[in-house]
Formats: sequence, C-alpha cells, structure tokens
Amino acid sequence: MKGIQRFPKTRHLVVLAGVVLVGTLGTTNTAAAQDVSDLQTPKSPLVLKAQGSFIVGGQVDAAAAGDLGTGAAPGHVTNKQLYVQFMIPNGATKVPVVMVHGGGLSGKSFETTPDGRMGWNEYFVRQGHPVYNADQVSRARSGFDQTIINRVHNGSLPPSALFNISRTSDEAAWQNFRFGPSFGVPWPDEQFPVEHAADFSRQGIPDLNASLTPSTTTSASSADSYQILASLAIKLKGAVLMGHSESSDYTLRAILTDPTGIKGAIFLETTNPSRCLQFSDAEIKKLAAVPILFEFNDHLDQQPAGVLASFNNCKALVGKINAAGGNATMLHPADLGIHGNSHMVMLDKNNLQIADLILKWLDDNVGGKTPPGHQ
Amino acid sequence: MKGIQRFPKTRHLVVLAGVVLVGTLGTTNTAAAQDVSDLQTPKSPLVLKAQGSFIVGGQVDAAAAGDLGTGAAPGHVTNKQLYVQFMIPNGATKVPVVMVHGGGLSGKSFETTPDGRMGWNEYFVRQGHPVYNADQVSRARSGFDQTIINRVHNGSLPPSALFNISRTSDEAAWQNFRFGPSFGVPWPDEQFPVEHAADFSRQGIPDLNASLTPSTTTSASSADSYQILASLAIKLKGAVLMGHSESSDYTLRAILTDPTGIKGAIFLETTNPSRCLQFSDAEIKKLAAVPILFEFNDHLDQQPAGVLASFNNCKALVGKINAAGGNATMLHPADLGIHGNSHMVMLDKNNLQIADLILKWLDDNVGGKTPPGHQ
Repeated sequence: MKGIQRFPKTRHLVVLAGVVLVGTLGTTNTAAAQDVSDLQTPKSPLVLKAQGSFIVGGQVDAAAAGDLGTGAAPGHVTNKQLYVQFMIPNGATKVPVVMVHGGGLSGKSFETTPDGRMGWNEYFVRQGHPVYNADQVSRARSGFDQTIINRVHNGSLPPSALFNISRTSDEAAWQNFRFGPSFGVPWPDEQFPVEHAADFSRQGIPDLNASLTPSTTTSASSADSYQILASLAIKLKGAVLMGHSESSDYTLRAILTDPTGIKGAIFLETTNPSRCLQFSDAEIKKLAAVPILFEFNDHLDQQPAGVLASFNNCKALVGKINAAGGNATMLHPADLGIHGNSHMVMLDKNNLQIADLILKWLDDNVGGKTPPGHQ
Repeated sequence: MKGIQRFPKTRHLVVLAGVVLVGTLGTTNTAAAQDVSDLQTPKSPLVLKAQGSFIVGGQVDAAAAGDLGTGAAPGHVTNKQLYVQFMIPNGATKVPVVMVHGGGLSGKSFETTPDGRMGWNEYFVRQGHPVYNADQVSRARSGFDQTIINRVHNGSLPPSALFNISRTSDEAAWQNFRFGPSFGVPWPDEQFPVEHAADFSRQGIPDLNASLTPSTTTSASSADSYQILASLAIKLKGAVLMGHSESSDYTLRAILTDPTGIKGAIFLETTNPSRCLQFSDAEIKKLAAVPILFEFNDHLDQQPAGVLASFNNCKALVGKINAAGGNATMLHPADLGIHGNSHMVMLDKNNLQIADLILKWLDDNVGGKTPPGHQ
C-alpha cells in the first residue's frame, strides 16, 4: 500500500525472534498487515433472523458558539449514548448476551480475530444466543463529547481543563495482556496469536473514559455505561451481560443499579485488584440475586503486578456471594489443564474452546428458552 | 432509564408541532429514545457465507512519555488504520460494494435506520453484493491519534497546537441535511424519518479529520483514506466504492491514486461546491476509466447555500467525463418523480426504493460475476 508504513522491520524481527526462540508456534506468517486473504470462511452459512444496530441512552447537551468546531454556531448534540450491534440467529431460543469490550478497545474485540478466525459474537450466535455487541459510552461509534477540547483550542478554557486520554502501547499490551514475559517474546504455551500482534495493535483506540462526568460511586466515569446496560437488559426482556476487563466494572454495577433484566453476568479478566474488594455486604446480597461467572486466564503469577491479587480477590468475592445464597463461579481454564490463555481470551487461538466453557455455564446456570426482546 | 435525559420536551414539541403542521407524516411516534421495540424483523432470514471485520492500513508511531496518557511510558501505537465490517451473502456472485459514511458520522450510516428499518448494508447483501462498511480513518472504530491532545494537557505543546474537532448540531443537520426549511419543521414531502430525529442525533460523533496530516493534494487530510480505499479495492480483487458526502472526495481521489481494483464508483450527495470542479483534464481522463454514478437528492434549490451549485458542478463533471470517453451518470430521483429525499438518503423512508435505482445502475454498468476477494 503506497505511503503506508508497515510494522517496523526491527520490531517485526524481535517478534519473529521470539517465535523462533520458543519454537512452538510453527508459523511462517509475518507480522505484516492483516489481509483479507487471512479471513477464514466458515464451513456452513450463518442464518440470521435479524441483524443491525441501534443506539440507546444519551443526553442532549447545549453547545455554545465554537463548542462544535471553529466558527460553529450554538446548537444541540447528543452525548453519552451507547451504540449496540446485534445478530439474532434464526430460530433463536437461548438467552441474549450483551458483550462489552475493555479499555482502549472497541466492539471489534468480539469480532473476527487478528488472524482472521471467527469471533465470539458470531460463535455465540451460532450456538443459539442473540448477541448484542456494544461500543462503550464515549468510545468508537458511541462518539464522545468534544466540548472541552474545542474550548481549550479556542482559548475559553485552560489546558488544565483537558481530560486524560489513555492508550495502550504495543509494549504495554504485550506484558499486561500476558502475551509473554517481555516485548516480542511469547510465553512457551502462549495462546494469543502473537504473529498477528501488529493487527491487534490496529484494534487499539484512544480511551476517553476520563471525559465522562465522574459518578458519585467509587467507580468514576462508569455511571453512564452501567445505567444504560441495566436499562438495555430490561429492553431486551432479559439478557446476560458480559464485560471484559475495564467493562467488568460496568456489568457488576449494572446489577447493583437494577438487576431486573439481568439474567446472568460474566466477568472476563477483572484485572483490577480493587474491583472485587469494593462491595458492601448489602451489595453482595444484590449480586447474589444473579448467576455470575468470573473468568481468569493463565500466567497470573508472573505479570503484571496485581493480576494474581485480582484473581484471589475475585475468588474471595465468589465465596462471599455464594455464602449470601448466590450462584457465583470462578472459571480458570488452567485448572482444567487448558494453558496459555491471555487477557484477550476472546482472540486467543483456542478462543472457541474457552467460549464452549462459558456457553456450558450459560446452559447450566441461565439456560431456559428466553425469547429475544424485539422479535 | 434512570439518570439519562431525553430529547428536551420543548424541542420535542417543536418537532411534533412541525409534524402536525404539515399533516403528512401520520405517526404517533414521539421523538423519544429509539427502543429495541422499534426494530423491524425482516420477512425472511439473512443467509451469509461469511461476516466479520478487519483493519487495513495504518502506520506505527513512536509515542513519547505522556503521549499515551498521564504518566504513560514511551511506546508504539498504530494510527491511521481503516476498520471495515463485512457481510458476504451465501452464493454471492455480484461485485463487492465498499460503503464509506460522511462527515461527523460513522459506519452506522449504512446500518439500521433511526426508525428501525433495514439499512443499505443488509439490503445490498440481500441483492447479492458482498458489502464492506468502513469507519473512516480517524473515526469511530478506526481510532484516532490522541498525541497532540495529551501534549497540550501535559504542557509540552501550546493550546494552539490542537486541531479543530467538528460536530454537526441537531439544528445544522436539520437544515443542511435538508429535513426541512427550519429546525423542527419538515418539508411537506420529506422522506427523512423526522419523528426519529432524536435517534439520528445519537448517530452524530466528533469528526477528527482535521487531526490527520494534510496531504499534498488540494484535499487536506483525506490522503490516508483514499490510499487505503484504493488498496482495499485491490485486496478485494475488484470492488465498487460508494462514498457519502465528505467521503465522496475519498472515493474520487482513490480512483486517481490507483484505479486497478475499482470496478465502479458511487458518489452520494457530493455537497461541496468545489469538489467536482477540482479536476484537471488529465485527472478527468483517469476518472473516465471507471463507471461512475453521482446521486443528488431533493430540495436542492432551497438550502443550504451551495447545494444547487454542487449539483450543477457535478453534472458538468459528468459531461466532461463522458466527453473523455467515460461512463458517468447523474441520478437525481426528483427527475423520476421521486420527491422529498434528504442528504441522509440511505436512512430515508424510501431508502430501499433509492437503493433499487443504484442496484440497477450497478447491474447495468458494473454487473458481471465478480468473485469476492477472500472466498
């Protein structure tokens, strides 16, 4: 492609050196750009009763002159809405699943993997679940509020008014998402498709959560998302919420906000040590009203710091929820002899094997024939 | 939904007053939030050979300390990539169509309409075309480069270094997208589903095109997108590019960059008066190598200023392309007795009627059995 740089050769070689060193990945793929030729076609067609997208929630904000761009007139725009894409399998009878990606990422997390394999959204649909894949409030197709940035640009606010925008570097992702011990070197049993690390880098986008109005809870900035999720579950006439990493907080707090529509909750890689520690006894009683699955992957005792503590804290929370009469489970595939899964488990080479464990938990603990909300 | 404001009642009433005033829309819908109950289920299932997403292009940028957020270490991230979602109909034999949304919007433009009807992406798939729906470079799931914002935040750049972020207000959309003569009042024959204007407002997102490095062409900031589109058409082994409004520039320039993979080009609502005037004779000869369709909708002589000039300038360009031996067509549904279509024609109430005109042009002018690129 003219004028477009590839993954720099020096870094590319580091990755390949790592692959050769451990000798287990057995691929001749380079770390070059994903190509449409990488995309795998399923063996059987996907038959959908319906697919599409909608946007829920949001508030109408008044914009002053210049807030909507240089020279722009005053007016109104909508902020804090939630974009949701859906696929409903033909003849669907299982409970809908709402998937919400983690920090610095978008709904892309649950779609086609960086090496072109089927994503969890399609796989869950093929197993009979209507799937709703969201972009977090203030992320990707949900948009964000640009007011403060434009006001600093036009001088009506000082630079200190800007919010922090966080982004995950390729180097930080490698270690924090547990691809391997140091950048370019995978764990010997690593399941993440590290030869496509450059393609995963393309999925990374700025995380504007700090732009959201802090809520009055301990979890600054997430209030909008968890209120919308609780409401969405009601609109769907019952749904399971699945939150990855940063979004496990939204799903946990959605239960506390209003569990009416929440038929179950799945927390993937809740790797914030304080997240499972923050609940009062009264809140734990509320969590006990919903079937809950925590899922943590491998190499917890190696890095980053805090991941093992997160796992142990969530195991303790599972115990407390069950002691309060609830139905909480900790799924740790390594305990079942399935090793090498990463923080990005939905993209790992054995992603469908892990999905099967979650789908079995759904059948056993949520199950039932729940009609999709808008059919 | 707790804590979430609705479209303010005063404005809501203005909209409804407009609807009542003209007396043609015959709906009791309010302008309240879109609900999943609005979503219409098609009469027959959608059968897909494949669906998913991928990301093409992009460059790896080195980030200094703090560029990736407060306290963040240096590292590398990918910017200027293009996110693309696709659906391939089972038994597909027609040419793939790449859809690219306009300014201040995302790929949502071609999905489910604000009032819950089928979007063009699914409709084109149901007519046998593989569809690739992109988020422009620096928009939505394609991410954007946050470096300058974070540097102004941490004081290493002055506020003047910030780029402009433009956003379309509800008021500007109403008039510029030709919903009606003044905010809240639709044209008597308006086809846009104005009773769902509040849902359309939820689709609006910040336009960060000004954050892109200006290209050396007259079209600042679009270079990355049009190079990627030209390359994508090649990767797909032949595709038609369809650009809406702002993105008609990308598709026009993609042809000039490299027409190898471009089997046809469709320009929807090229409402920038200079856009069709900017081509040299040598460039017009290049445009003559590709079947081209321009599409302009109704109320061109009313507002906003410049729309009628755009239409006339593009009609003149059609003439010049044909004089150079090309195959260019101007589609103006009003000339066929189809009135009231808006700038957001893919969301209009008769969106499938307009799609049929475009699909017929495709069959007649591009046609043929083109195998999808990755099947």
